[in-house]
Amino acid sequence: MKRTAFFISDGTGLTAEALGHALLAQFEKIEFERITVPYIDDEEKAHTLVKRINKATEVDGTQPLVFDTIVNSSVRDIISTADGFMIDIFGTFLSPLEQELNSSSSYTVGKSHAINNEGSYERRIHAVNFALDNDDGARTRHYSEADLILVGASRSGKTPTCLYLALQYGIKAANYPITEEDLDDQKLPAALRPHKEKIFGLTIEPERLATIRNERRPNSRYSSIQQCMHEVEEIELMYRRERIPYMNTTASSVEEISTRIIVATGLKRQR
Amino acid sequence: MKRTAFFISDGTGLTAEALGHALLAQFEKIEFERITVPYIDDEEKAHTLVKRINKATEVDGTQPLVFDTIVNSSVRDIISTADGFMIDIFGTFLSPLEQELNSSSSYTVGKSHAINNEGSYERRIHAVNFALDNDDGARTRHYSEADLILVGASRSGKTPTCLYLALQYGIKAANYPITEEDLDDQKLPAALRPHKEKIFGLTIEPERLATIRNERRPNSRYSSIQQCMHEVEEIELMYRRERIPYMNTTASSVEEISTRIIVATGLKRQR
Repeated sequence: MKRTAFFISDGTGLTAEALGHALLAQFEKIEFERITVPYIDDEEKAHTLVKRINKATEVDGTQPLVFDTIVNSSVRDIISTADGFMIDIFGTFLSPLEQELNSSSSYTVGKSHAINNEGSYERRIHAVNFALDNDDGARTRHYSEADLILVGASRSGKTPTCLYLALQYGIKAANYPITEEDLDDQKLPAALRPHKEKIFGLTIEPERLATIRNERRPNSRYSSIQQCMHEVEEIELMYRRERIPYMNTTASSVEEISTRIIVATGLKRQR
Repeated sequence: MKRTAFFISDGTGLTAEALGHALLAQFEKIEFERITVPYIDDEEKAHTLVKRINKATEVDGTQPLVFDTIVNSSVRDIISTADGFMIDIFGTFLSPLEQELNSSSSYTVGKSHAINNEGSYERRIHAVNFALDNDDGARTRHYSEADLILVGASRSGKTPTCLYLALQYGIKAANYPITEEDLDDQKLPAALRPHKEKIFGLTIEPERLATIRNERRPNSRYSSIQQCMHEVEEIELMYRRERIPYMNTTASSVEEISTRIIVATGLKRQR
């Protein structure tokens, strides 16, 4: 059975989407057609959207789920007339919070993904530039500025993780690929030694690594299972010998890897 | 007045954080100390956390706000004994959804930021690699593969936006900086012409552009207000002449820019 789900907001829709996706993920047997509708910020757009929701009810023969984080009450009133199963996220939680905090909600649209705090937004953008400039061991001279240095075999997930940590949390993460030459003496590469306390290691199942490398350089020594097994084994040995904290990324998303790193290192999520 | 807010999950905590931040953003007069506690996935961790919440109540002299998306009911029961103002996000919405969908929640932990759908996760990682490989006009030969080509003056926000679109939505976005040489004839640069339907333009206030450029190359011609004014004016003229859709990024976050682009282009948010 298929159900339609709308994620509606007068801002970017990211909050409605995040909560809606998390709730729907609990219903694995049901297939959802997901529609995000951001920037419903005036009554005309609200009326058009009501028609669209009602149309979905007609086509599906059942009410769509409607997750909304609409702040403007006149817009919300219009949306609430739609023929859908309404999950009014702000409506549910804002008024108990107002009571508890003894303060009125400002009912301002799109607060949570706007540039509220210019300093922290700029920090995120600087962190993205830092991750790009210090990607893949390109430079090591800025490591003293880094909050974190991710190390691991080539294609073990370092770059996407650094970018996610930068964009989401403003964490300045450099990354350094450990290559065969680094593995001769089973020690931490010299360029990394002065920054040992900032280093976190990634590892990955050799089979998975070989698959990923094969997409880049098919049938090469680099992507052979023998080579991947050798590198992973040596790198893990080095991590243990040098007491570098590390995790296996094989079955984890960048969100999960990033969260685990933050927990393990005690880095602060900037926001 | 300062209040403590906990965001608690047995998964990454990203959903609890997203909703919690969005709600707290509505109370601008109150300063919040924000604490995210992910991976509370057994009873022992839950008991330790209850002590931490109770300690915060003691220190603050008032209850902390506790936003949680805990799925495991025995863990949730323990957390609910804490002396905090509890906002039980899943508890509030899952049971009405179960009724409406006539289906049981699977009560599986950490679904929403895990690799549920391997294809769509890989698409996001490929999109990140695509954005990196096709950043800053480095290559134009893969433009036929792109979902989107962002253009604009150097430092107008193209790269972070491409990375965000890739990481969040799996959208393959290349970017091309429009330089002075491109502006001689007020036409779209030749490399872009075959891909006109994928092009979206960014523009920015010259004053803001000069500030950003000054951080990279202080007191240069590149970062002078005259140069920035000239480039922005010529680029906007070109957008209008060539009927390229565009937006001004000056006051917008990457989340807002990305959402606007998706709305304007009709690109699908992959997930």
